[in-house]
Amino acid sequence: MDADMTERDVTELAKMTIYDWPTGPYPARVRIALAEKNLRSRVSFVTVDLYKGEHKQAAHLARHYSGTLPVLEIDDGTFIGECTAITEYLDSLDGPPTLTGTTPREKGMIHMMSKRAELELLDAISTYFHHATPGLGPDVEIYQNAEWGFRQRDKALKGMHYFDGILRKQPFVAGEFFSMADITVIAGLIFAGLVELPIPAECDALHTWYAGMQQRPSVKNRVAMSEMVAA
Amino acid sequence: MDADMTERDVTELAKMTIYDWPTGPYPARVRIALAEKNLRSRVSFVTVDLYKGEHKQAAHLARHYSGTLPVLEIDDGTFIGECTAITEYLDSLDGPPTLTGTTPREKGMIHMMSKRAELELLDAISTYFHHATPGLGPDVEIYQNAEWGFRQRDKALKGMHYFDGILRKQPFVAGEFFSMADITVIAGLIFAGLVELPIPAECDALHTWYAGMQQRPSVKNRVAMSEMVAA
Repeated sequence: MDADMTERDVTELAKMTIYDWPTGPYPARVRIALAEKNLRSRVSFVTVDLYKGEHKQAAHLARHYSGTLPVLEIDDGTFIGECTAITEYLDSLDGPPTLTGTTPREKGMIHMMSKRAELELLDAISTYFHHATPGLGPDVEIYQNAEWGFRQRDKALKGMHYFDGILRKQPFVAGEFFSMADITVIAGLIFAGLVELPIPAECDALHTWYAGMQQRPSVKNRVAMSEMVAA
Repeated sequence: MDADMTERDVTELAKMTIYDWPTGPYPARVRIALAEKNLRSRVSFVTVDLYKGEHKQAAHLARHYSGTLPVLEIDDGTFIGECTAITEYLDSLDGPPTLTGTTPREKGMIHMMSKRAELELLDAISTYFHHATPGLGPDVEIYQNAEWGFRQRDKALKGMHYFDGILRKQPFVAGEFFSMADITVIAGLIFAGLVELPIPAECDALHTWYAGMQQRPSVKNRVAMSEMVAA
């Protein structure tokens, strides 16, 4: 913790709550960010059951209009949804390491590459899952558009080749250091694993990078995170 | 300009280039941000013709993999795509006003509400335009999924009611001051105007807020911006 942090900050941090689903790819984005920022001990977790559709029911919609997970509740009762927004919040609470960048160029590149990882990989696979596979089951998936879903699957495969090309040129998705953009690609590949959409064999650099990412404690321990006793 | 800015910063600012289309709703997001930050004089504009599909051709795809507008080029030749990323870059170049927030809570709320304005309004209307109307014409719209497009139109109408409810409770989309989240809703309503999807009459607060936003010079002068002689 920074030496200049006040008592109030400590209280604020101590009271954070995360509403999520332990194995979800989007929840993984925030769990990995929490671990990288060493903020795990300040958070308690509440499970919202995706397979029962609890994220689309009134109690959760009151937290977050769009009805997705994860959602962060801070100590004044404010709910913050959307992974990028939660990561921005967490990243500005405390000191290094930065996940969202320090200089203008870093901020721009990290936000661009993270958004690109959503559009071209993570969100595309999510749409494939919800529209062109049984998804969360017939009670939850009340509208499906299979043609759109398959198209998004193909976009995600093309996206894997794109990120492979990036990682042939640089060690991390947005450049020279680990950032939110890496976390978003990791979440995309976690989702790809769940829907059995393997990384193409020829994507050597993406395979190598992902093997390295899976060695990070933040990634390795993300599902068990909510079972750990807070310090 | 901040007194502590260095000579190098000035040079960097002087060389920015924006690739966009003057009347586009996404380009509006960056044009409004530039004007709010008083950075117009540091930028030159290059037109990429949407109706000729130039944004999907090799020259533009080399700037930005996803093939969308706008794109910012900074002085080292780096291209930054995606409106949120460009806004983060511009907002961290110089001093107040802030468009992306200063405290953790402000940053979290602004990013959440801006993303929500994309999901529930701007991106939904864009999908409607490209999939369920003639869009940019048959040469550019080589794949359309009309059912998905109409569904997104309905989502956008619901989104207008949601933002109306927000603006009944607070003066700006993310709270007490103008931010990136307002700009994203403005872009959504600009796009709604282009596709002739009017704001429902009963959305009084949204109508009143939007009338106020249209009085801001940044919003009023956005299309003419690229015609103005740089100072």
